[in-house]
Amino acid sequence: MDDNKADNVISRRTLLGGTAAIGVAGASKMVLAESNPDNLPPNVSEWTPYLGAGVDANPYGMPSEYESHVVRRNVEWLTASTESSVNFTPLQDLEGFVTPNGLCFERHHGGVPEVIPSDYRLMINGLVDRELIFTLEDLKRFPQTNKFYFLECAANGGMEWRGAQLNGCQFTFGMVHNVQYTGVKLSDLVRETGLKPNAKWVLAEGGDSAGMNRSIPIEKVLDDCMIAWAMNGEALRPEQGYPARLVVPGWEGNMWVKWIRRLEFGDMPYMAREETSKYTDLMTDGKARMFTWVMDAKSVVTNPSPEKPILHKGVHQLRGLAWSGRGKISRVDVSIDGGKNWKTAELHGPVMEKCLTRFTMPFEWNGEELLVQSRAIDETGYVQPTIQELQNVRGVNSVYHNNSIATWLVNKNGKVDNVRLG
Amino acid sequence: MDDNKADNVISRRTLLGGTAAIGVAGASKMVLAESNPDNLPPNVSEWTPYLGAGVDANPYGMPSEYESHVVRRNVEWLTASTESSVNFTPLQDLEGFVTPNGLCFERHHGGVPEVIPSDYRLMINGLVDRELIFTLEDLKRFPQTNKFYFLECAANGGMEWRGAQLNGCQFTFGMVHNVQYTGVKLSDLVRETGLKPNAKWVLAEGGDSAGMNRSIPIEKVLDDCMIAWAMNGEALRPEQGYPARLVVPGWEGNMWVKWIRRLEFGDMPYMAREETSKYTDLMTDGKARMFTWVMDAKSVVTNPSPEKPILHKGVHQLRGLAWSGRGKISRVDVSIDGGKNWKTAELHGPVMEKCLTRFTMPFEWNGEELLVQSRAIDETGYVQPTIQELQNVRGVNSVYHNNSIATWLVNKNGKVDNVRLG
Repeated sequence: MDDNKADNVISRRTLLGGTAAIGVAGASKMVLAESNPDNLPPNVSEWTPYLGAGVDANPYGMPSEYESHVVRRNVEWLTASTESSVNFTPLQDLEGFVTPNGLCFERHHGGVPEVIPSDYRLMINGLVDRELIFTLEDLKRFPQTNKFYFLECAANGGMEWRGAQLNGCQFTFGMVHNVQYTGVKLSDLVRETGLKPNAKWVLAEGGDSAGMNRSIPIEKVLDDCMIAWAMNGEALRPEQGYPARLVVPGWEGNMWVKWIRRLEFGDMPYMAREETSKYTDLMTDGKARMFTWVMDAKSVVTNPSPEKPILHKGVHQLRGLAWSGRGKISRVDVSIDGGKNWKTAELHGPVMEKCLTRFTMPFEWNGEELLVQSRAIDETGYVQPTIQELQNVRGVNSVYHNNSIATWLVNKNGKVDNVRLG
Repeated sequence: MDDNKADNVISRRTLLGGTAAIGVAGASKMVLAESNPDNLPPNVSEWTPYLGAGVDANPYGMPSEYESHVVRRNVEWLTASTESSVNFTPLQDLEGFVTPNGLCFERHHGGVPEVIPSDYRLMINGLVDRELIFTLEDLKRFPQTNKFYFLECAANGGMEWRGAQLNGCQFTFGMVHNVQYTGVKLSDLVRETGLKPNAKWVLAEGGDSAGMNRSIPIEKVLDDCMIAWAMNGEALRPEQGYPARLVVPGWEGNMWVKWIRRLEFGDMPYMAREETSKYTDLMTDGKARMFTWVMDAKSVVTNPSPEKPILHKGVHQLRGLAWSGRGKISRVDVSIDGGKNWKTAELHGPVMEKCLTRFTMPFEWNGEELLVQSRAIDETGYVQPTIQELQNVRGVNSVYHNNSIATWLVNKNGKVDNVRLG
């Protein structure tokens, strides 16, 4: 799966028709305008004759200044205060399936508290045999687990229910990130506290000013939930819950309580604000679905996309990401004609459950209009739906759980727009 | 393999004997001294009542200020200039197997050049059918590959040949990092240029002021070498070769030419400075081994380690990393009595070839001296050697390729020292 380069899809001979032989100045027409001929072969580039920066300057390194456009961004009109707001991961600029910690989207309900790690405590109380308080060091003495998981906000794509609204990959899909978490499984913590037979739910509560809290059923708690203290090898970032957060693999992001301070076991759900007033799905009959936790299979083409126009005619590598809260991605199909014809993309391994999966597909562009779509299928057989299929069930009053197929219109000039078909 | 928690090794009942029941102030004695009781349960912590920082402040996020000790460090006496120097990854502070980009060790031979991405070119010349120059955009139009690989400097541990010298995990093992690379395989580029039948070697040349260059045999070039432009999802960091570097999986780090500007195919090795004067292994008979490319199986216990003393009696999770340039890690054994007895550690998946593998093992400490060692075994059956076994073959004049078993002495006070046994 990993090294199947789909050689049959595009003739090799057409791949780099625009690339110059040595001696012809400027290989790539679109880049040429911005290039300084003095730096190109056969000249010695300006950066070569002189010693570069040493190793002392950056004990913690940062990206190149030429990458300053690769940042989290927010939509100004979306929320009233920065403390209860969101920004978005720049998916269109990323490769592979790891999200760098500095680019993981943020969503807060009361801002980012500055938790002092030596004063951090996790309390477990309620229907347990032995109520306990753990320090961070205590948590690290338990067996550890290391797992890649995607985290997606239930509202990712929420502005797109009634039509194509935000003309960007970042703003329509960027409330998702994917890192390797290190922590302790709740099932291991619970073995230490014991559980009363009637413990059926847990209330997870954050230490932020919102006191963010959610109810989680015991089956999920004992399956794969974790208390995590590290992401991508280093301590959690402040905006991701430093020093510890709840990890609820495959379920909507607001349940992944950050700065977690308490787990209370009870015999029924707690009916917290964020599972009654918010994070419910209003149906056409006026009733609301509660506890729609799982993030169903979804995918996005990150390149081309509204932020990533096509600059050249010829062969390109279409790139995208797919994920499912129910397990592994088993297949991704790509269409460039608005869903009339589909081809199977290459998946880049390791393909892991509840983890972003990178897909690619070569395609040739000769200046015609394209309608680019991707469709994820997970190991349960679930197929990512169209927006019409979703609306047939839920109408257009929902905000959350829009996992429908998006469409990018590639115009004749190579620019790309977010559009709604049909 | 991933969720085998070795329940049988340590009795669960002893795990957190020191953890307090609710109401007893201070769960963890060693942390208590540093904790502010006003912030501990049942009090409301100082960070909870007030709105925290908003999302606008950090378009590219940074670690918590409480993690300011987690940085790359250098050894002042090791090299004369910062431009031809090295710093070290803080392995003792990391979890999982991903190295955050900001913490990947640096080694430069002429400093970090500031390469302008629009002026970047990769030339392929020599014994090819068609000499070509590629822009960065050209490279991204080829089929892409996404792979986790470790990169280790051949000199990692080089100061330890004659005895335990540097009292730290960071300084004795920290010239290694592990990220997910995105790029194009050289075998795909070469299909575009064609190869003459007598093309048996390639010279890879960097655009830095050192003009860093190395010879690589054609079999490796066509096997798994890549030109990479991204690490852990984002563009290469400047100190890692922005905008493009060579990736030579499993082979010594200096061959992974950064800021790569040229690949010249030839019919014999180029005998460059860095493969004749340097990066050779001086044997006891006065002859030097050349072209010792592969980084053999190796491992390190990152916790406990000289920087990570044991703070409590009781149960702990020993953590470490293992890797092999020849494939996957198949097993890691751990000893706490200087190699008399060994137990098999848990490996945390996915276990991938030429990639760091995290291992853990629970152990109980009651204030006695320990001699902690780890021993990696790879899928070829190769067993990480003792320093005596290495010295029997190579003597003590080598600098490079010290993959011997290290020993951490845990003292009765919990402090840890780097020692040499036997």
